[in-house]
Amino acid sequence: MSERHLQIIGLKPEAKEEYIRLHHIVWPEVEARLSASNIENYTIFNHGDLLLGYFEYTGIDYAADMAAMAADPITQQWWKLTDPCQQPLPAAAAAGKMWDDAVELWHLA
Amino acid sequence: MSERHLQIIGLKPEAKEEYIRLHHIVWPEVEARLSASNIENYTIFNHGDLLLGYFEYTGIDYAADMAAMAADPITQQWWKLTDPCQQPLPAAAAAGKMWDDAVELWHLA
Repeated sequence: MSERHLQIIGLKPEAKEEYIRLHHIVWPEVEARLSASNIENYTIFNHGDLLLGYFEYTGIDYAADMAAMAADPITQQWWKLTDPCQQPLPAAAAAGKMWDDAVELWHLA
Repeated sequence: MSERHLQIIGLKPEAKEEYIRLHHIVWPEVEARLSASNIENYTIFNHGDLLLGYFEYTGIDYAADMAAMAADPITQQWWKLTDPCQQPLPAAAAAGKMWDDAVELWHLA
């Protein structure tokens, strides 16, 4: 069983080139930490000034797995590079969040 | 091998309830036609006034598979219900398209 997630955030136009460059070479430690937090089949897409991240969560405690990722020092260093490229959407910004979750309406296997 | 796709389109606020209702019971013929066109793991998400569709294409001729879907009479009937709920984004509308494709930046298996 897996939970499907789609997250959305703004991409600052002036940081688009840098964000794309960073994602040519995502640090192996960051990818390993995502996998350790039971995130699979993760793809980040760009459309205009939006970033869209799709992934499947296969663990049993999402909050704990996300907290373990956020506590990882190398992931924190990575986010110091990527966060300044991103612009949370208004509702997420008001809640102090970065990526905002979309709601699944329908799925076809 | 599969190609990952993320597509985006606007959702008219006044049609949101109807669009969600339609997707509680997508017609089996529409789902079968998607599968016959080699579309797998297809999820439609909603965020605000946006719809976001993620799917994996496992065929070898995407254009032909999409054309076969568009030529299917039952799929055409379905789109007569869903199209009026949707508002193509400006670039797609200018190109005479409905859903617009995002660009993959990075993937983690």
